[in-house]
Amino acid sequence: MSSVVICVDVMGGDEGPEPVLRGIDAALAADEHLEVLAAGPERIVVPLADKRQRVRALVAEQAIAMDDDPISAVMKKRRSSIVLGCRALRRGDAQGLFSAGSTGAVTAAATAFVTPLRHERAGALRPVRPCITSALPNRAGGLTVFCDMGANPDVEPSDMVRFAQMGAAYARAVLDVRAPRVALLSNGTEDSKGSLFTKACFPLLRDQIEGFVGNCEGDGVVSGDYDVVVADGFAGNIALKAMEGSAKLLMNELKSTFLGSVRGRICGLVMRGSLNDLKKRLSGDSRGGAMLLGVRGVVLIGHGATSSEAVMNGTLSAASAVRAGLVESISTALDSGQADGEQCL
Amino acid sequence: MSSVVICVDVMGGDEGPEPVLRGIDAALAADEHLEVLAAGPERIVVPLADKRQRVRALVAEQAIAMDDDPISAVMKKRRSSIVLGCRALRRGDAQGLFSAGSTGAVTAAATAFVTPLRHERAGALRPVRPCITSALPNRAGGLTVFCDMGANPDVEPSDMVRFAQMGAAYARAVLDVRAPRVALLSNGTEDSKGSLFTKACFPLLRDQIEGFVGNCEGDGVVSGDYDVVVADGFAGNIALKAMEGSAKLLMNELKSTFLGSVRGRICGLVMRGSLNDLKKRLSGDSRGGAMLLGVRGVVLIGHGATSSEAVMNGTLSAASAVRAGLVESISTALDSGQADGEQCL
Repeated sequence: MSSVVICVDVMGGDEGPEPVLRGIDAALAADEHLEVLAAGPERIVVPLADKRQRVRALVAEQAIAMDDDPISAVMKKRRSSIVLGCRALRRGDAQGLFSAGSTGAVTAAATAFVTPLRHERAGALRPVRPCITSALPNRAGGLTVFCDMGANPDVEPSDMVRFAQMGAAYARAVLDVRAPRVALLSNGTEDSKGSLFTKACFPLLRDQIEGFVGNCEGDGVVSGDYDVVVADGFAGNIALKAMEGSAKLLMNELKSTFLGSVRGRICGLVMRGSLNDLKKRLSGDSRGGAMLLGVRGVVLIGHGATSSEAVMNGTLSAASAVRAGLVESISTALDSGQADGEQCL
Repeated sequence: MSSVVICVDVMGGDEGPEPVLRGIDAALAADEHLEVLAAGPERIVVPLADKRQRVRALVAEQAIAMDDDPISAVMKKRRSSIVLGCRALRRGDAQGLFSAGSTGAVTAAATAFVTPLRHERAGALRPVRPCITSALPNRAGGLTVFCDMGANPDVEPSDMVRFAQMGAAYARAVLDVRAPRVALLSNGTEDSKGSLFTKACFPLLRDQIEGFVGNCEGDGVVSGDYDVVVADGFAGNIALKAMEGSAKLLMNELKSTFLGSVRGRICGLVMRGSLNDLKKRLSGDSRGGAMLLGVRGVVLIGHGATSSEAVMNGTLSAASAVRAGLVESISTALDSGQADGEQCL
């Protein structure tokens, strides 16, 4: 395996630096060709780097809190671990970044400070809008790439073509899906269904995306019928949070069902291990978080309430996406996409 | 209890008329002041009415199939059970309609053939856009009214005010919530979050809806923090289907977990009754379906794959909404709402 440098934001995560440091150690132990650039306060990252051969320190005296306004925090806190991590990506000091900090702040910082990927539009090369992407477990036992999950609440139809190209490149490079089936999130599966916006996206996707199979409904994200589901960041975020809410409701109700009787409690005890495995499999922790596609570097955003296991998985996933050539695949997909021409001006 | 006539579409439902007929009988047995106007083919509804004192026949020789295009089917099949049921509502031959037929066709037929409720806009009384509404079980053990779930993929911000008024009236009249907390479905809870569209809705809702508490995310639909969640029909449908997809994924995974080991199978057997109760509680069957608000009559739309229990519950729910004065409450809420004035022209 080739050696890869991943910058890890020590200040990301609601639980403070402790689980992040344990996660770094676990990742280093699991991957002997991994190097970590640890971004955080001097008192934490310098001793860490001193004691470990494959860790370097990136001293960042500021931290962006989960409740800071993302854009203004990124603009004001230029010495924060998130901003310095993104600049390290830009300089090539690292090929990937893992942060369990604020999704909004990581997205804003990466958009501002990492070199954007470009696509041709109206005869000029223009930066793409980065989109937040995850590979979610589906009912067929596989994974479905879902983007955009919230970076861009308002986009143009031509942006959706870019999201589809990037999502499909992710499916090919990281998930090894040879010919991804790409669907457009809509309010019905028929070609005629949709809002005015998705109806404008439909013909562009049909003409420009190989493997485009049409509209899907909200349950298409996890049905296993599609490898990539594309949405604007508003609809995508709503679908994602709705799925999380529904899963939480069901888990709560299940817990009450088990706790509601003696035989239920006994079964709960007997099945505890398997149910915890199931919970872990369906949570994002096993893949470490969501990926921001569209910049020249692998950017992985963990959950705020993160565990050392999630940090380990996130760091290893970032390294594996670097080795899989994710950024190069996306760049090629954007290059080889039909130029937008005039229809989206 | 006052006597109420509910028109029941005998041809609705993927399972054919049999479960509908059993559901009608069960509803009649449960409510001695209920009368049913059974809409369907002569060979079915006439013998039914002959044998039962509280059933009258509405002969409808056409049926709209689940896969018919809703709007053209409603326009062409004027003698279908759905269209004739809607006309019966308009004439006052029934106060409510229950159909487990195509949601699109029932919505189109009710919009075309039942008298619309009106609201003042720019000095004139105009028909409201009907919206599809359900009361979904939430994590606090209560119900949250969710509208629009799919009738209107593209609306104006002022339509969203109407949906909020109608949803809140439903919560007050049917669910006995004295002061409903109303939220706008968005991609974040902060006031500044949203798409351009929801940002245009926000100030209108804040100024015109008593009990408006701001934005909620997709998980707000089932969190129990809100009594009413308002969305356009595109976002609402996506959230609804995403929740269904997530629940189905989780139930499948649970099933595999239980079937995956001998101890799991034993626990599955032991807990089967409780798990089925849970499934029933979370499915729409206990309330019979979704309600179309905005017309002068109670219109309840069941799932296509319906059971006799769902037909019974739907028919009884429709009767109970009639007795609760749902239509009058909505009409009052629309009347007493601030007139839209110029801001939405």
